Amino acid sequence: MSMDELRRRLGQVSDLNAAAGLMSWDQETQMPPQAARVRGLQIATLEGLAHELFTSPHTADLLGAVGLPGDATDAAIVRVTRRDFDRATRLPTAFVEEAARARNEAHHAWMDARDHNSFATFAPHLERMMDLARRRADLLGYEDHPYDALLDEYEPGMQAAQVREVFTDLRDRTLPLLRRVTAAGDATDYGVLTRPFPAQAQKTFAWRIAGEAFGLRPEFARQDESAHPFQTNFSRDDVRITTRVEGYWPACLFGTWHETGHAMYERGVAPRWERTPLAAGASLGVHESQSRMFENLLARSRPFWRRYLPALAEVAPEVTAGLDAETLYRAVNRVQPSLIRVEADEVTYNFHVMLRFELELALLEGGLRVADLPEAWNAKMREYLGLTPPDDAQGVLQDIHWSAGLIGYFPTYTLGNLLSVQLLEAARRDPEVASGVERAEYGPLLAWLVEHVHQYGRSLTPAELTERATGRPLSADPYVAYLHGKYEDIYGLKAEGQE
Amino acid sequence: MSMDELRRRLGQVSDLNAAAGLMSWDQETQMPPQAARVRGLQIATLEGLAHELFTSPHTADLLGAVGLPGDATDAAIVRVTRRDFDRATRLPTAFVEEAARARNEAHHAWMDARDHNSFATFAPHLERMMDLARRRADLLGYEDHPYDALLDEYEPGMQAAQVREVFTDLRDRTLPLLRRVTAAGDATDYGVLTRPFPAQAQKTFAWRIAGEAFGLRPEFARQDESAHPFQTNFSRDDVRITTRVEGYWPACLFGTWHETGHAMYERGVAPRWERTPLAAGASLGVHESQSRMFENLLARSRPFWRRYLPALAEVAPEVTAGLDAETLYRAVNRVQPSLIRVEADEVTYNFHVMLRFELELALLEGGLRVADLPEAWNAKMREYLGLTPPDDAQGVLQDIHWSAGLIGYFPTYTLGNLLSVQLLEAARRDPEVASGVERAEYGPLLAWLVEHVHQYGRSLTPAELTERATGRPLSADPYVAYLHGKYEDIYGLKAEGQE
Repeated sequence: MSMDELRRRLGQVSDLNAAAGLMSWDQETQMPPQAARVRGLQIATLEGLAHELFTSPHTADLLGAVGLPGDATDAAIVRVTRRDFDRATRLPTAFVEEAARARNEAHHAWMDARDHNSFATFAPHLERMMDLARRRADLLGYEDHPYDALLDEYEPGMQAAQVREVFTDLRDRTLPLLRRVTAAGDATDYGVLTRPFPAQAQKTFAWRIAGEAFGLRPEFARQDESAHPFQTNFSRDDVRITTRVEGYWPACLFGTWHETGHAMYERGVAPRWERTPLAAGASLGVHESQSRMFENLLARSRPFWRRYLPALAEVAPEVTAGLDAETLYRAVNRVQPSLIRVEADEVTYNFHVMLRFELELALLEGGLRVADLPEAWNAKMREYLGLTPPDDAQGVLQDIHWSAGLIGYFPTYTLGNLLSVQLLEAARRDPEVASGVERAEYGPLLAWLVEHVHQYGRSLTPAELTERATGRPLSADPYVAYLHGKYEDIYGLKAEGQE
Repeated sequence: MSMDELRRRLGQVSDLNAAAGLMSWDQETQMPPQAARVRGLQIATLEGLAHELFTSPHTADLLGAVGLPGDATDAAIVRVTRRDFDRATRLPTAFVEEAARARNEAHHAWMDARDHNSFATFAPHLERMMDLARRRADLLGYEDHPYDALLDEYEPGMQAAQVREVFTDLRDRTLPLLRRVTAAGDATDYGVLTRPFPAQAQKTFAWRIAGEAFGLRPEFARQDESAHPFQTNFSRDDVRITTRVEGYWPACLFGTWHETGHAMYERGVAPRWERTPLAAGASLGVHESQSRMFENLLARSRPFWRRYLPALAEVAPEVTAGLDAETLYRAVNRVQPSLIRVEADEVTYNFHVMLRFELELALLEGGLRVADLPEAWNAKMREYLGLTPPDDAQGVLQDIHWSAGLIGYFPTYTLGNLLSVQLLEAARRDPEVASGVERAEYGPLLAWLVEHVHQYGRSLTPAELTERATGRPLSADPYVAYLHGKYEDIYGLKAEGQE
């Protein structure tokens, strides 16, 4: 009976969160502009009630009363819910409210600072964000490093020391590759990437391939436009992605397939976790492994474009005029150091993330003062990518994360990249998966992902999932090998092994 | 302090209802089809939590603690909230749940019965609906007639005896007019009503005029398609209408402007009622007075088509080829007795409603048995409209209301018709309003409606609102005069005064 009552309570919390999610999706894609003020109040109410219901003494009583259920599904639900409950109740309401107000102020200050290219106006807010992050870490508790407590919210069980070790390894083994690639010059003519491609045709093609290649179907999914692409879902039968259309058309296509990776993960979560806290991805890193796999490992592969160039030619003949699959493959894999993370290619992307991780650590530890951050940012930019931002808007102010208090979030992007290759390598040990991937037929791969990754929802930790699915802990090795193999080939470099 | 706390509580309830409303809107217009099952659970949770919060002992305490606030706005909020609270707490949870289950079963039985034209399968469910209606009336309480308690939920303060009196008057004075009109033959060539009109052009034109003529603007409103047109809103800054496109294009146009009337009412509710139970129309009848005014009194008028025929010609030249405003005016005001209420013209519409009101009363009183209902329906159909339904699907089974337990709802349609003319007559006493209406410029009329109707939300009862806005109680007189004037003119009949 207690378990039924606990499930009922978790269902209510899940439904409130779904409603808040739908209100946010609606705000980004459908809502009339004047509605924004009241919508903010409505979302705050739903999130507040969800938190109140979840952290209530009644939930604590139920978690006590259910003990250790014999049923494996129930046991997993109780285990993960207890963990969430402990974490949620460690933060006093006064602290949560103070942090919410500070975030709101910091967010507006950041937008203002970015628009006026003035780091100084944002600096006091960032100091406050770092102070709140330290206090948050203290409240949540940690053994080795306060960063561990923050990281754990996005990547359960991961520790700063482990990230540092993996990142150092990755940096040391891919920086020489980046130097060689950039020295090699162009691998093809990149003009195709900005040929005229009508907006509606971009969306239609991206959505059609999301269905045909990756299984995202209108029976349980939809596509909309928004200023910033995202994925959201309100059940496994209702997953939604958004996209953005630009003159640089790969942004729409690969962005859509990136979100499709997130969407298919949520779609693959087993029905047994429905309306519980476990009906979600294991972590941000594991989530990103799916989006990056679809976007980069699959959609930026030779077999993919051999298969889908004809479909592209149907909807966008002006783009594909005189184009062969090899040229297109090389074009969409252009490596070019740039200032902006979200526009970075596979080889340079992780340096953007490492830079942020290193600076976050230094800020949190106090070794770096906020006032000195822009200079530290620019120095690292020069060290890794050989570029100096012309202003802070294109440098330290480019990302929204720190203004939103998301300290400890950035590493998950690179952890996702690493895991994406490690998972695909493991999946390809299955001959059917391997031969499918070579023909850009992803049905067997999707089935493998559902079986080894998606279905578990949050019932496994990222480390457990990685071990079970790939047979070993997370490592930079597969990713380093992948980058070398792919880009030495594209840029005609002699294989050097892995430096 | 108590008043602040009461407002906070009412705000939460309002936000939960808004979330449930958005989830329903999304379900009808956007949602992937597979999501329906979980969406049903989510909406039930939100509605349940809203009811739980509203009827909690804490709300009772707050309503006790605030006493009689000196501030007029606060006083109105407390008065209406107390009334809602009393009503909501008179129905035991067990009864509410039993009724919800019975409605759900009745709804499916009704759909099945309609599809198979089998009243017998629906009959036991309708008996149960009538039994629940009687018990509901007993729980809610009434002085004269159980119907009063039911009607009061849709039309606060209205009583069955008053409806019967007004309806009898209306029937006796408009049935002769209907006989004369139908004897007169066609008033014009009606072929224009089914000329080819592309779906997108129908929607675009209807929406454009909703903005230009009636003030419904994309800054705070939107239009979508759904199987059944409706209006919904989540704040006065977020009002949404839906429409449906048919080969018979007036359905889309006048349907859109009908919903626009509802939408502009919600838009006009004063900001002081925001996120309280008063931020809504005074009653279903008053709401319908606005939708029917826009749809019929304005959009089915000569000045309207004199003004907007050129705009129609721009988007649908095939429809308007060789057409003048007078022919179009006569065509869209065709009077033709028909079997289906929602397709009825202004002259026959109210007979559909009177028929249902008389049958509901007889069923509730026990004078009519459910088994004899189809025969009673058909007899009244012959008496009023001279038609015999070929089957029950086009007769007694045509409306969703009884299967949804909505007993006492139908009269509000005709009350709305009556009030629409009474209000417009009062508004036209203002010369600026009158001259605007003659030129199909509705700005002054809209301002009058906001001032005398919309702004009050639920702070006035329908009777108070009618008295204040028009100077007298609701009466059939203005509507009877309107019908005679309009249709004697269109059908070239000699004026007989009002029989």
